[in-house]
Amino acid sequence: MHSPPRTEAVPVPTPAASLVFTTTLSHGPLTRAEIGRRTDLSPAAVTKAVRPLMAAGYLVEGVDEEARPSLGRPANLVRVDGGRALFIGVKVTGDEIIAVLTDLCCRIRVARHVRITTRDPGAVLSSTAALVQELLTEADGFGVRVSGMGLAVSGDVDRAAGVVRYSPFLDWRDVPLAELAQAVTGLPVTVDNDVRALTVAEQWFGAGVGVPDFALVTVGAGIGCGLVVHGRVVSGAHGVAGEIGHLSIDPQGPPCHCGNTGCVEAIAGDAAIVRRVGEVTGLSVTDSAQALELAHRGDPGAREVYARAGEAIGRAIGAVVNVLGPQRVIISGEGLAAYDLFAEQIRDTFAAAAFGTAAQCDVMTRPLPFEEWARGAAATAIQSFIGTEHV
Amino acid sequence: MHSPPRTEAVPVPTPAASLVFTTTLSHGPLTRAEIGRRTDLSPAAVTKAVRPLMAAGYLVEGVDEEARPSLGRPANLVRVDGGRALFIGVKVTGDEIIAVLTDLCCRIRVARHVRITTRDPGAVLSSTAALVQELLTEADGFGVRVSGMGLAVSGDVDRAAGVVRYSPFLDWRDVPLAELAQAVTGLPVTVDNDVRALTVAEQWFGAGVGVPDFALVTVGAGIGCGLVVHGRVVSGAHGVAGEIGHLSIDPQGPPCHCGNTGCVEAIAGDAAIVRRVGEVTGLSVTDSAQALELAHRGDPGAREVYARAGEAIGRAIGAVVNVLGPQRVIISGEGLAAYDLFAEQIRDTFAAAAFGTAAQCDVMTRPLPFEEWARGAAATAIQSFIGTEHV
Ligand SMILES: [Zn+2]
Ligand SMILES: [Zn+2]
Repeated sequence: MHSPPRTEAVPVPTPAASLVFTTTLSHGPLTRAEIGRRTDLSPAAVTKAVRPLMAAGYLVEGVDEEARPSLGRPANLVRVDGGRALFIGVKVTGDEIIAVLTDLCCRIRVARHVRITTRDPGAVLSSTAALVQELLTEADGFGVRVSGMGLAVSGDVDRAAGVVRYSPFLDWRDVPLAELAQAVTGLPVTVDNDVRALTVAEQWFGAGVGVPDFALVTVGAGIGCGLVVHGRVVSGAHGVAGEIGHLSIDPQGPPCHCGNTGCVEAIAGDAAIVRRVGEVTGLSVTDSAQALELAHRGDPGAREVYARAGEAIGRAIGAVVNVLGPQRVIISGEGLAAYDLFAEQIRDTFAAAAFGTAAQCDVMTRPLPFEEWARGAAATAIQSFIGTEHV
Repeated sequence: MHSPPRTEAVPVPTPAASLVFTTTLSHGPLTRAEIGRRTDLSPAAVTKAVRPLMAAGYLVEGVDEEARPSLGRPANLVRVDGGRALFIGVKVTGDEIIAVLTDLCCRIRVARHVRITTRDPGAVLSSTAALVQELLTEADGFGVRVSGMGLAVSGDVDRAAGVVRYSPFLDWRDVPLAELAQAVTGLPVTVDNDVRALTVAEQWFGAGVGVPDFALVTVGAGIGCGLVVHGRVVSGAHGVAGEIGHLSIDPQGPPCHCGNTGCVEAIAGDAAIVRRVGEVTGLSVTDSAQALELAHRGDPGAREVYARAGEAIGRAIGAVVNVLGPQRVIISGEGLAAYDLFAEQIRDTFAAAAFGTAAQCDVMTRPLPFEEWARGAAATAIQSFIGTEHV
């Protein structure tokens, strides 16, 4: 386990303090009584949890003049002081690096992105360092230090060790990314799987607020899944979880880059769709935009490829729902651009695959641009800063 | 939601009190300091949680003369008073009803079983009532009242409502089992899915003690799975979870009783194996024992059927591991009788299907007789009695 440099003292991360912080972040401003109700903590426990967070300036309490109730004295409200600290969140895709500067409330203040032409870890790191430098310069204007940085990468990521163990899209193996990024940026770095990072943002601010059990299914270059069970993001005992892209659903299916056959991603991932649309149309199709255009123009072969992809995604969602029975499934990712082409197949296949009342799960779509993924990375940095990663 | 009759007052089920009770049950006797360490509760919170449990007589505290440390004064140890209450646990299979009488520590005091020839809910209920009557008579000998009963049935079971919504093996739909069983036995009844009930027993006393994330995969008539994530049994937002038997792994596979094709259970469930062994050998095979004997005698066709079943189970385990990344997978169920015939296929297929470090998961087998499943049902009754079902 690497030890990130700490830029300043943080409160002792008790589970109760972490819970109070994230509850206030998601639902605040709140009265102390409301915090108690939402966290199941006693008034004394709320007081104890709030004290160090206020001492550090992360939480502030005061009368909200606008929310003055019509009767009685105005309520004292506790809220996160967004301006108290800044964070940087970075999402690395195969083609692009997206970086955002956020405040302690994880509100995006500045966003930047840069194309990359090579996936070599050294080159990606120096592009990241340059982008971070731009954001650090912007941060100077706010007069607040940047307290940490989150880096989100697809694949098997060991957050505790700060190591990308295996990222198929980047073709990385055992890259000690946190250590390397710290060395070039001087910031404490949290490295996490990109879908898991996005799931944190959805849980704190998105369609997962107040939903103790949900799945976030991302479709695009990869088919991923972030899971929240019993109110907490699932990380997996060995760092792997939500790998629905590599559920094998057809022994006669196409080979997958993971070494298996018939994986969901080998049918419904961008590269698989592009390749297959090229095969069935006999045309030269080199990217998703072209494949999408052919299907949208009505080419029956191309449309069929998307229909098959939708079935594969529907089966993957069915598997998650049968295994975990979440209350909600949120479908997102850049692949939503093709949603009209496979929405029906996703829903029909899911409905057929779901066992019993598991089918009552609320399946919704939600477009989340890459800035939102980068925001998720910033959220993981805030987790590390406050010490909430275990809550 | 039905309201079970309460035979006596129970302490207010605060989450902390429930946590202290189950921790003491699994790991006790414990000092108060040890309870604090294991539950992350402060000394004051432990005191507050322990008080009503002691007042009710469920926990007792005293010097353990045998555990006297060599130095210093003997430690005061807290333990569950097993003799304080009795419970009945019942597991219903397609052929048999198994019932156990346990104490508050969920130790089995008496076990009984009876064959059934019809799966009609009324007939099953009256056989259950007769068996329960026998155990109530036995209970008289202990001089303690039976405080509740747990009923474990396979399928989609709504524990909160006490309703078996759909049980394929029993061919039951929307049976208000808790209400009916209460009416015939006079006991407060908790109804739960059988694999989930067994998972509670494994978490409290078995291979799941101290393991915050594990899966219990059961093979036999059905292929089921109980899940513990973040230290809590997964119930599913709508009551369905762990339904790996109905993961479809082959679109060309055999039809399943659930309406899908290529389900794991349609390949690896007992009925599927019996049918398929009959087909490939051309012999009349009517039950698992015959199929097993043919394979053990070396019939290549029969052996191949078990090998395919092992692959299907391995794929199902791979799916659970890729989705949740548990620390441990426990394989159990009456299907373990055939384990030598498919162990290799389960392990190889699982290893190939597991993504990245998810493969590091510890996969173990553990024979658990039906008495243990009935004990799981008793554990759910203890949960309801103490109010720990939400912990
Ligand atoms: Zn794959
Ligand atoms: Zn099925």
